[in-house]
Amino acid sequence: MNQIVPAFAGGTMDRADQVRVDPEKLRAAMMKPSARLLKLDGLNPVFDDIGELAWGAAYEASPDNDLLLLGMDGETPCFAELNGAGSAGPAADPHLWQALGALPPDQAAIYATARSLVDWHARHRYCANCGRETISRKGGWARHCDKDEDGCGAEHFPRTDPVAIMLAECEGKVLMGRQPMFPPKRFSALAGFIEPGESIEGGVKRELWEEAGIKVRDIRYVASQPWPFPSSLMIACTSRTDDPELTLDTTEIEEAAWFSLDEVKSAMNGDDSAPFIAPPPFAIAHDLLKNWMDEQE
Amino acid sequence: MNQIVPAFAGGTMDRADQVRVDPEKLRAAMMKPSARLLKLDGLNPVFDDIGELAWGAAYEASPDNDLLLLGMDGETPCFAELNGAGSAGPAADPHLWQALGALPPDQAAIYATARSLVDWHARHRYCANCGRETISRKGGWARHCDKDEDGCGAEHFPRTDPVAIMLAECEGKVLMGRQPMFPPKRFSALAGFIEPGESIEGGVKRELWEEAGIKVRDIRYVASQPWPFPSSLMIACTSRTDDPELTLDTTEIEEAAWFSLDEVKSAMNGDDSAPFIAPPPFAIAHDLLKNWMDEQE
Repeated sequence: MNQIVPAFAGGTMDRADQVRVDPEKLRAAMMKPSARLLKLDGLNPVFDDIGELAWGAAYEASPDNDLLLLGMDGETPCFAELNGAGSAGPAADPHLWQALGALPPDQAAIYATARSLVDWHARHRYCANCGRETISRKGGWARHCDKDEDGCGAEHFPRTDPVAIMLAECEGKVLMGRQPMFPPKRFSALAGFIEPGESIEGGVKRELWEEAGIKVRDIRYVASQPWPFPSSLMIACTSRTDDPELTLDTTEIEEAAWFSLDEVKSAMNGDDSAPFIAPPPFAIAHDLLKNWMDEQE
Repeated sequence: MNQIVPAFAGGTMDRADQVRVDPEKLRAAMMKPSARLLKLDGLNPVFDDIGELAWGAAYEASPDNDLLLLGMDGETPCFAELNGAGSAGPAADPHLWQALGALPPDQAAIYATARSLVDWHARHRYCANCGRETISRKGGWARHCDKDEDGCGAEHFPRTDPVAIMLAECEGKVLMGRQPMFPPKRFSALAGFIEPGESIEGGVKRELWEEAGIKVRDIRYVASQPWPFPSSLMIACTSRTDDPELTLDTTEIEEAAWFSLDEVKSAMNGDDSAPFIAPPPFAIAHDLLKNWMDEQE
C-alpha cells in the first residue's frame, strides 16, 4: 500500500505528551541548556542559510512569553515562543507556501504545529465560557481559566478544524473549481469545513451539492494533511456522479469545469497549453490529482 | 463498495446553507407557520410515543432564546432552541446512547447536530479574542463579536474536534483497551484527539505509541462518525504492527490486550463466555470490529 504523505504531514518528532502534562518534567526541559527555540518572525518561519528552519536556544526566549513544547528531538527539548502573533485573516502568501514546500517533511510538520499553536494562543486569550483572561498550561497545549483569579475553571484546547477536499469523477473527467481569490487560470479541488453532526462522507456530499449542484456516491478517503492557515485538517476524498450538470454557488466558486485525464496531465506537467494551472505540490489537491492520474493508468 | 454508516452519520436533511447566511430568508423561515422546533430537555432529546424525536412548532420557542436552523425538511424549516444548556463534562449515559442508537439514522444525525450546537453556544458566549459577550449569527452557525458593542469584530464558528480511533493488528489479533471509566469487562478501540500539525495517520501512530507503546504501519481509513459528546468527529482506522509487546500509559488505559478472531466474534455475538464485552452498536469501534471480522473471512 502506497501511503500518500502530503506537505506538513510528515511529522516524526516525539510530541512528548508525558512532559507536557508534568509540571516538573516540563520545567526541567525548559531549563536544559541544550533546549532549542524555533525562530519565528511573527507567525512566519525564519530560514537558515540552507533554507531549513532556524533555531536558537530556549534561554534566549523573552521572559514575557510563555513557551510551547513542540516535542523532544532525541534528548533535546524543542520549544517555540508564544509571541502573541495572530492571523488577521486567511493566509494567502504563495511565496511562503513555496518555501515551506521545499523543507524536509519533518521540519514542515514542526513549523505547521508551531504556527497553528502560536496563532491559536494569540486569538484565544480569553475564556469563551466566562470572558476572563486565561493562562497557557501544559507546555502550551491548553489554556486554563483559573478559579483562583475569579475564573470559571474551564480548560480550553487548541482547535483543529476538519475540512473535506474532494474530486468528483464523471465519465472519466474530474471536477475542479476556482475561488475568486485564486491566481488567473488556477483550478483546484472543491473544499469546505465539516460541520457538527456530519461525517466526512456527509461533508463531501453536502459541499459538492451546495457548491456545484451535483449528487455524488462512492466517496473514498485518499489522504490527510494538517494545514496551519490557521488550523485545518484537510481530508482528501474522491467521489463519483452520473450527471455532470453543474449549478454553481457563485458566492463560493466563480467557475467550475470537468477536466479529462489528458488535460489534468498537461496541467500537472506545467505545460503552457494546459487548460488550467494545477494546484501547487504542497497543496493536498495536488496529491489528489496525482493519485487520480495514477489510478487511471 | 460497501460504505459503513455509523450511528449519527446518516444525515439526509438539507442544511440550507443559503438560508443561514441570508437574514431575510432566515427571518421568513422562522415566521413560517409550519416551521418546526426540535424538543429538547436541556441537551437531551425528547422522544414521542413511538421513540422518535419529538417536535413542536417554532412559534412556541421562548422569545429569550435564539434559534438554530437545523435545515429544511422539504419546504419545512426545522429549528432548535439555543436554550443555554451546556455539558459539564464528558457525557457517559449508556441509556441515552442506546435510545439514540434506536433512532432512524437521519433523526440521530439531526439530534447530533442540535446537541453539539446548543452545547457550543452555551459554552462559548464570550469572545475568545477579546473577552466581550458575543451574539448568535447565521441561524446559530456562528457567534459574532459586535464592533458596535465595543467588541473586536471576530467571528467564531462551532468546533468539530477530529479524533483518531483505531485497531492495530498483529499476527491475526487486534489490540483493544479499557479506560478506567468503562463498565466491567468492556474493551474498545484506542482513541485520541488529532493535534494541530498532525495528519490522521500521524495521530493514529502517535496515539498507539503513547498509549500502548507499539509502532504501527499500513494505516488505513475505514469510516467516520460525528459524536456529539460534545463535538467530536470520530475517524476510524486500522493499522498493523510486527511486535505485539505492549507498554501501557496507565493514566489513559488501565488494561489492553490482543484478541483473536474467535474471541472478537464471540464478544460481538454477546456470548457469556466471551473474554470481553464489545463496544455497543452506536459506537464506531463496533463498526471497526465488524469491518475487521468481515475482512478476515
